[in-house]
Amino acid sequence: MAGNSFGNLFKLTTFGESHGVAIGGIIDGCPPGIELDLEAIQAEMNRRKPGQSAIVTQRKEPDEVKFLSGVFEGVTTGTPIGFVIENSNQKSHDYSHIKDSYRPSHADYVYDKKYGLRDYRGGGRSSARETASRVVAGAIAKQMLKNVKINAFTSSVGDIFIDKPYQDLDFSNIESNDVRCPDSAIAEKMIDRIKQIRKEGDTIGGTVTCVLQNVPIGLGEPVFDKLHAELGKAMLSINAVKGFEYGSGFCGAKMKGSEHNDLFNIDGSTKTNLSGGIQGGISNGMDIYFRVAFKPVATIMQNQETINKDGEKVEMHGKGRHDPCVVPRAVPIVEAMAALVLADYLLINKTYS
Amino acid sequence: MAGNSFGNLFKLTTFGESHGVAIGGIIDGCPPGIELDLEAIQAEMNRRKPGQSAIVTQRKEPDEVKFLSGVFEGVTTGTPIGFVIENSNQKSHDYSHIKDSYRPSHADYVYDKKYGLRDYRGGGRSSARETASRVVAGAIAKQMLKNVKINAFTSSVGDIFIDKPYQDLDFSNIESNDVRCPDSAIAEKMIDRIKQIRKEGDTIGGTVTCVLQNVPIGLGEPVFDKLHAELGKAMLSINAVKGFEYGSGFCGAKMKGSEHNDLFNIDGSTKTNLSGGIQGGISNGMDIYFRVAFKPVATIMQNQETINKDGEKVEMHGKGRHDPCVVPRAVPIVEAMAALVLADYLLINKTYS
Amino acid sequence: MAGNSFGNLFKLTTFGESHGVAIGGIIDGCPPGIELDLEAIQAEMNRRKPGQSAIVTQRKEPDEVKFLSGVFEGVTTGTPIGFVIENSNQKSHDYSHIKDSYRPSHADYVYDKKYGLRDYRGGGRSSARETASRVVAGAIAKQMLKNVKINAFTSSVGDIFIDKPYQDLDFSNIESNDVRCPDSAIAEKMIDRIKQIRKEGDTIGGTVTCVLQNVPIGLGEPVFDKLHAELGKAMLSINAVKGFEYGSGFCGAKMKGSEHNDLFNIDGSTKTNLSGGIQGGISNGMDIYFRVAFKPVATIMQNQETINKDGEKVEMHGKGRHDPCVVPRAVPIVEAMAALVLADYLLINKTYS
Amino acid sequence: MAGNSFGNLFKLTTFGESHGVAIGGIIDGCPPGIELDLEAIQAEMNRRKPGQSAIVTQRKEPDEVKFLSGVFEGVTTGTPIGFVIENSNQKSHDYSHIKDSYRPSHADYVYDKKYGLRDYRGGGRSSARETASRVVAGAIAKQMLKNVKINAFTSSVGDIFIDKPYQDLDFSNIESNDVRCPDSAIAEKMIDRIKQIRKEGDTIGGTVTCVLQNVPIGLGEPVFDKLHAELGKAMLSINAVKGFEYGSGFCGAKMKGSEHNDLFNIDGSTKTNLSGGIQGGISNGMDIYFRVAFKPVATIMQNQETINKDGEKVEMHGKGRHDPCVVPRAVPIVEAMAALVLADYLLINKTYS
Repeated sequence: MAGNSFGNLFKLTTFGESHGVAIGGIIDGCPPGIELDLEAIQAEMNRRKPGQSAIVTQRKEPDEVKFLSGVFEGVTTGTPIGFVIENSNQKSHDYSHIKDSYRPSHADYVYDKKYGLRDYRGGGRSSARETASRVVAGAIAKQMLKNVKINAFTSSVGDIFIDKPYQDLDFSNIESNDVRCPDSAIAEKMIDRIKQIRKEGDTIGGTVTCVLQNVPIGLGEPVFDKLHAELGKAMLSINAVKGFEYGSGFCGAKMKGSEHNDLFNIDGSTKTNLSGGIQGGISNGMDIYFRVAFKPVATIMQNQETINKDGEKVEMHGKGRHDPCVVPRAVPIVEAMAALVLADYLLINKTYS
Repeated sequence: MAGNSFGNLFKLTTFGESHGVAIGGIIDGCPPGIELDLEAIQAEMNRRKPGQSAIVTQRKEPDEVKFLSGVFEGVTTGTPIGFVIENSNQKSHDYSHIKDSYRPSHADYVYDKKYGLRDYRGGGRSSARETASRVVAGAIAKQMLKNVKINAFTSSVGDIFIDKPYQDLDFSNIESNDVRCPDSAIAEKMIDRIKQIRKEGDTIGGTVTCVLQNVPIGLGEPVFDKLHAELGKAMLSINAVKGFEYGSGFCGAKMKGSEHNDLFNIDGSTKTNLSGGIQGGISNGMDIYFRVAFKPVATIMQNQETINKDGEKVEMHGKGRHDPCVVPRAVPIVEAMAALVLADYLLINKTYS
Repeated sequence: MAGNSFGNLFKLTTFGESHGVAIGGIIDGCPPGIELDLEAIQAEMNRRKPGQSAIVTQRKEPDEVKFLSGVFEGVTTGTPIGFVIENSNQKSHDYSHIKDSYRPSHADYVYDKKYGLRDYRGGGRSSARETASRVVAGAIAKQMLKNVKINAFTSSVGDIFIDKPYQDLDFSNIESNDVRCPDSAIAEKMIDRIKQIRKEGDTIGGTVTCVLQNVPIGLGEPVFDKLHAELGKAMLSINAVKGFEYGSGFCGAKMKGSEHNDLFNIDGSTKTNLSGGIQGGISNGMDIYFRVAFKPVATIMQNQETINKDGEKVEMHGKGRHDPCVVPRAVPIVEAMAALVLADYLLINKTYS
Repeated sequence: MAGNSFGNLFKLTTFGESHGVAIGGIIDGCPPGIELDLEAIQAEMNRRKPGQSAIVTQRKEPDEVKFLSGVFEGVTTGTPIGFVIENSNQKSHDYSHIKDSYRPSHADYVYDKKYGLRDYRGGGRSSARETASRVVAGAIAKQMLKNVKINAFTSSVGDIFIDKPYQDLDFSNIESNDVRCPDSAIAEKMIDRIKQIRKEGDTIGGTVTCVLQNVPIGLGEPVFDKLHAELGKAMLSINAVKGFEYGSGFCGAKMKGSEHNDLFNIDGSTKTNLSGGIQGGISNGMDIYFRVAFKPVATIMQNQETINKDGEKVEMHGKGRHDPCVVPRAVPIVEAMAALVLADYLLINKTYS
């Protein structure tokens, strides 16, 4: 049962390999009557795409999305929205050296073992290129969500962390620098670190924090489809993600109940919010905030020893165009996945009225 | 779309409230021909059940599971396995005080908001009692998995951590103490802390680490149903969970690619295993290890100020029988969820042969 | 992927074999706040159960349904509703003769081939006993549907047909005779035929017609989950069903467009209704009517030649208690399945508001 | 929950309106390693497409399918197969007259009611144009099924029926005439009738019979996903279908058990096959044969009185290019849907090994 669909009522199914003809997807279940702002969708695409700045991969893709159905006279019809994004800047020859070899910590080895063959060019389906389709769907979901505010940002690169609670950050600063960190001083340090890492031909990890505000109360479907469980699955499905925590997260594991409980105000809001906006798996109206951990990208420009299909040792030289740090480009992907989850659960909640 | 089912091909659907007549479930898709070891299933149940030791809740439930179908002459038939576990030791009067009040950091408030009403007794469906059904299904999944080794243990309570890598631990020690920590010295400290916390009428959080060994290569369904994404969702659906990380986890976010990459041995195994046994969302044959963070249980014996349905301030006194620390009882639940995920993905993988 | 669940948002999962401990199911997704009329549910059960009259099987089951969860103080909570129905009147020794033999036109052979083993007693999971669970869920769905009228009746037994359009029938007569035919004169002929067939130790087929009135406009999800496609699947999943047609059905295949088209009245209703209340797979507010064909039950009291597991010829004598004609007992099952489909699609439609 | 996906393990999701930019789909779950015969796929497309002969619609579409992913060096990779088919011969002005009016027995009215708006051109999503995507997927499924023989043919047009059992027909004759009837004499009568109907500006219905041979034993998932139930849903989802019957069908409802039962041969095959190759919802190795009823297409060239959006009477003149009888073009669609069901259930059955 291949896993290329996400969502229940607002469902995205995607296709496409890094160096194939095109990537794209179908959104099934988008409600009718939404006037789509196509520029806003393209803007989200542009946030994600490669070749934007000096600290990300130099592959240049226009990443223009073309809608093929489901929109009539600018308004969604309730019928499935099919879309494609052409691949144009593939340099497949960059990958001929891995045709028979397995790059360490990549999916090359397991794809061969699972499927018996693979499109090796650019990592094929395992490449993060497929996340472009997620951003298209997430952008449409955002337009469905209207009042909900979704803001993600880079909260750490390597061992450089933002040292303030998110409430003290100005989200309007997120897009003001290449690393998408709303704290300008920390952003500079992050950028310097990434440039350093790039010179070394290495890569580095980081974390993305995401804050969802004005989320309606009542989203979430216990006991297995709790809101934070679905958010966690959504984030963990993004390339290079190694961890997810929400609210007090792993720190909460060190606390006592008397310290951790969020007491109520008279209007149902809570005085503190260590819960992270979700209790019993259902949103309670408070801010939902979570953090996603990204490992350093596996493709480095340094030499590595590895093996090939026949079990022989080979030396691999990193080639192709790569990201020293994926975290800035992951920010819009995290937002897109959050929007998809919220849109889906919002539709589910309509059945309770 | 209510979320009371887990899995695709090996699917568990559960029902039951804490103080209802019974809890139970249906397992659909268990392959035929498996000779069920009923004692082993009951043994897993006994690991989870309340009233076992001085450091957990004193509610005593026999937690005997009764199978109603799907097993003929001791062997699974491939037809759905229905089972029930009777609730016997409900002290519903213990909960009359919360009939109209909302316990802080519990699901009381959101259930009322979402559904318009709730079975308040013992937390109703939001109570961790429903996890007993998961353990039944997980126990059956374990028997399907045969060679796979699944071991979970308490890795921290509050700020008391095991300070060794899991490879240096003896898993046969896990059941040797009430806190299910395989390091005896650390276990003692944990137990002392929990007893202290209990005297204070408070609760404390902790983490569970789980190690899966001998997992076949190739399990996982990119791009959305990656193995670790499904494991993450499974764990996050357990009561009180606030975080999930696998392999290098959040630490990996601080590392460089040259430090993080797992180089190959000639036979396809890797020299290091920061990947945590999963690459590109697919198992690669190495140990899969992950950590789950549990917040302190919200029910404390100290007084708390809260509100009731009419938005009035009320004072709440903790009553009922509760856990000062859920982590030891969560250990078999973590194993059960891991077994369910692996069983499901193992069945999916048969379609590739 | 075992197929024991039906529905998407209003979902029923069932379990249970004919001679197992019990049968039952879980209804997930029933909206909260419905005051359940338990007597009405039991009344539907009584319509289906065996041992009711001289023209059906003599197996006597009380068929009392016991609810285990999901209902609090008589009102649905929105949490899953688990229920069991105990099997009490199994005469398993009646089936010892088929332990190793395959009854012609039964599922014995294919179950052994598919699963490798089977619970042979009473046909195990393949027995129509499992339909009792469907009737429980259908009864609850009916209570959710309020204004929709669902009426099914026996429209033919063998070559004895009702010769009037349904509009000329009095549905209040359906329960007035054992064969559930609203035309008293035809009903008598049907009963006589069935008694005759019973004396011969034979069985006979028939058809059930079902009429759904006051169905809201807009139910149905093109292009694959069209309303009539889901109704068709629902009916075809009932034991012994060999055909489904709605509206003009197979007769419509002989007609011309100028004869078949339903012209509009000013208010959107249609002058004729050969469409059968569904156009483009979506309900249009007119009566939905369909017909379901039942083959004669395979268990006959006459001797038959057959084979056993080892491929040897054996002679089989029909034993056990059986129905000469299942059609009267199928009437409430047809209604139950129709109610499940409508409840599900009604919930889905709420997402469009 | 929009219904634009079909299948579980071999899953097709489609998009596209009659006069939109393009139609297409994604096939998720096609096993890796299948060498795709692209010409065979295009040949199936050509069987379905409009403008082929004098007895079908004169709209000319090249219906060339373009694959965008999931195939590498001619072999399926196990990753999702995305494909598009461009719409080129839309004459949208032909439909301006129905912009605000509702064609009788079409989906115009219900789409407006359900979604609040619709793409009126050519019927939008409700047009049979979307079936082209089904044929692509069905063609790929056929290649996965290898030894299974799938043959569908026109068995009746109006009141002209083939009067032989299918065993006496030569399937190699199906493609020898425009009406796809393997009996040449009957075919001529059918063609004459259709030409007559066309002159009258009218339309006529008919039936398609389909025979599946060499189907492996054991396909089907009781109790709700029985093989014939899924086949029924598949066929009923095709435009204009009003009925489905398999094996003895509605005739079986008139028979007695002693007449209807299929006795076994020693090798497990049956002497007769009124069951139609499926018992208890599971294939038994015998031929599966079923019949699908198509009503006459609703668009006729004669004038019809109807209403518009504002509830006013208007007169409608049939325009556009239409089919006097869809049945010949439905033949490859019926085969495609049968192939999709078998491919899906074949994959499901692998989990039992």
